[in-house]
Amino acid sequence: MAVYTEVTDDDVAAFLQEYDLGEVVSMKGIAEGVENSNFLLSTTTGTYILTLYEKRVKRDDLPFFLGLMDHLAARGIRCPTPIHGRDGEALRELCGRPAAIVTFLQGMWPKRIDVHHCRKLGRAIAQMHAAGRDFPLTRTNDLSVQGWRPLLDACGARADEIESGLSNELQTELEGLEQAWPAQLPEGVIHADLFPDNVFFHQGELSGFIDFYFACNDQLAYDLAVCLNAWCFETNSEFNATKARALLQAYQEVRPFSEAELQALPILAQGAAMRFLLTRLFDWLNHPEGAYVAPKDPREYLRKLRFHRAVRGPGAYGLT
Amino acid sequence: MAVYTEVTDDDVAAFLQEYDLGEVVSMKGIAEGVENSNFLLSTTTGTYILTLYEKRVKRDDLPFFLGLMDHLAARGIRCPTPIHGRDGEALRELCGRPAAIVTFLQGMWPKRIDVHHCRKLGRAIAQMHAAGRDFPLTRTNDLSVQGWRPLLDACGARADEIESGLSNELQTELEGLEQAWPAQLPEGVIHADLFPDNVFFHQGELSGFIDFYFACNDQLAYDLAVCLNAWCFETNSEFNATKARALLQAYQEVRPFSEAELQALPILAQGAAMRFLLTRLFDWLNHPEGAYVAPKDPREYLRKLRFHRAVRGPGAYGLT
Repeated sequence: MAVYTEVTDDDVAAFLQEYDLGEVVSMKGIAEGVENSNFLLSTTTGTYILTLYEKRVKRDDLPFFLGLMDHLAARGIRCPTPIHGRDGEALRELCGRPAAIVTFLQGMWPKRIDVHHCRKLGRAIAQMHAAGRDFPLTRTNDLSVQGWRPLLDACGARADEIESGLSNELQTELEGLEQAWPAQLPEGVIHADLFPDNVFFHQGELSGFIDFYFACNDQLAYDLAVCLNAWCFETNSEFNATKARALLQAYQEVRPFSEAELQALPILAQGAAMRFLLTRLFDWLNHPEGAYVAPKDPREYLRKLRFHRAVRGPGAYGLT
Repeated sequence: MAVYTEVTDDDVAAFLQEYDLGEVVSMKGIAEGVENSNFLLSTTTGTYILTLYEKRVKRDDLPFFLGLMDHLAARGIRCPTPIHGRDGEALRELCGRPAAIVTFLQGMWPKRIDVHHCRKLGRAIAQMHAAGRDFPLTRTNDLSVQGWRPLLDACGARADEIESGLSNELQTELEGLEQAWPAQLPEGVIHADLFPDNVFFHQGELSGFIDFYFACNDQLAYDLAVCLNAWCFETNSEFNATKARALLQAYQEVRPFSEAELQALPILAQGAAMRFLLTRLFDWLNHPEGAYVAPKDPREYLRKLRFHRAVRGPGAYGLT
């Protein structure tokens, strides 16, 4: 639940003077998102999302994120589209924070995932990857393989507070990933955080992606590796290969994987599990007492990591 | 910030089958309100508020609250209006909680109070009191004078954790209030919680009241006593008699106070300060570690209580 910065009625009225969006009708803080302050803003011209970027988002990255949403929207990918002010700028300041207004996206994220969600998702990711091909800005994925050791070091032996022996297990796992991490796979702009709560559906169709604040340049197949973890495990921790196949095959109908990508899927999925395990572990060990947002249990991703480690090839994901 | 119950896309789609509101377009949890789970619900017919009533609201009280909103709205008082389902019922169940959909009210609550807010407020309260006169249901104010001693006893000597000697001071104060509490003042349906965040303004006009979940039958002037505390102190704790006069005079243009009401204003204001001091004190001493909602500082209302105790007559509130 996230509204970290209080914005008064006077603040928002003054802010809207910079836009051609009419007058404010109502504004309500949204209890979703953990990184930024988000408000649903109704004006005399429509409904928008106002975001104030809090400290976990780097100000220098914002032109990449906002520019990407502009770029994708112009190519027919449904996502929040930044509203530009009268001076042409989409990125401004409000209450001492970088701030932007984006369009409101119809739909809700699916709380119970079924195969058809995975199929629509796979296809839409491939379309997004294609649309991002000529995006001129670049941003390194600082939460890819080279970013994991600093995170693990920061947790140190305290990983054993979660489970005895975990610190050693993760050290071994990370060394394996660092050595075996694939190079030379097709790269491009990826979303890098395609959890179900960032994908909206409306009337059975995927109505758009939100929350591009981890987007970066990286191996395209890594976006799918994140989704194998986030969409294809059941709540009892069992892996659902039918969902995985639907996801990957739908993607391949738009952009077929190379043989190298297919063979790399298990290690990419291990890496994606490691990335979310490490950030959750760090947040679990370091969350302040009384924080608004309850940290997510890192063990969920430990189980997923172990699953992918035991996988021997893309057949485990329903591909032959 | 409050969304205590997770409602899935499937849950809300099924729930909407009971209404003539069209299909769901989006639903977002609102980070406001501390008692219930509130969602901004967009459908193909408009925008609504969906509320799930959590444990602090008694189920048996809901027909009073929802009926009152219906009654007031039918008499031109702007407030959320319950939407009735196809079977005529406004109160239903969702995710194991009592739930209702109400209309969406335009406007925002004022974060910086000025005199014109107080003037509009006074007039609108008087209109609400008049409109409530023939409401047939009744509900006791269980947070009026007879409800304060159990709260104080529940805090006990721990009040001294806030300030040395506070426990004794509140005992003395409460005895005084119990002895001097006025009877025979004009009664009716009051809102009983008219803090600024429950009063919306739009384009300079009061656009409605929300959050009727403390509404009850009590002395009408007590609603004004709550507002003297919630609207007429500056952030530096100084009392602004100009705001108080604007509030009370605008009320009196619709319904003049009797002489007994005028003379009772200081003790009613003391009582209202005691009521919010005690609930805040109780919450302060009893909030669970890591709770989502930070408890409000009870000392703010201790200062207000002491101010009203020193008042000798309605002149302190700008009335002559």
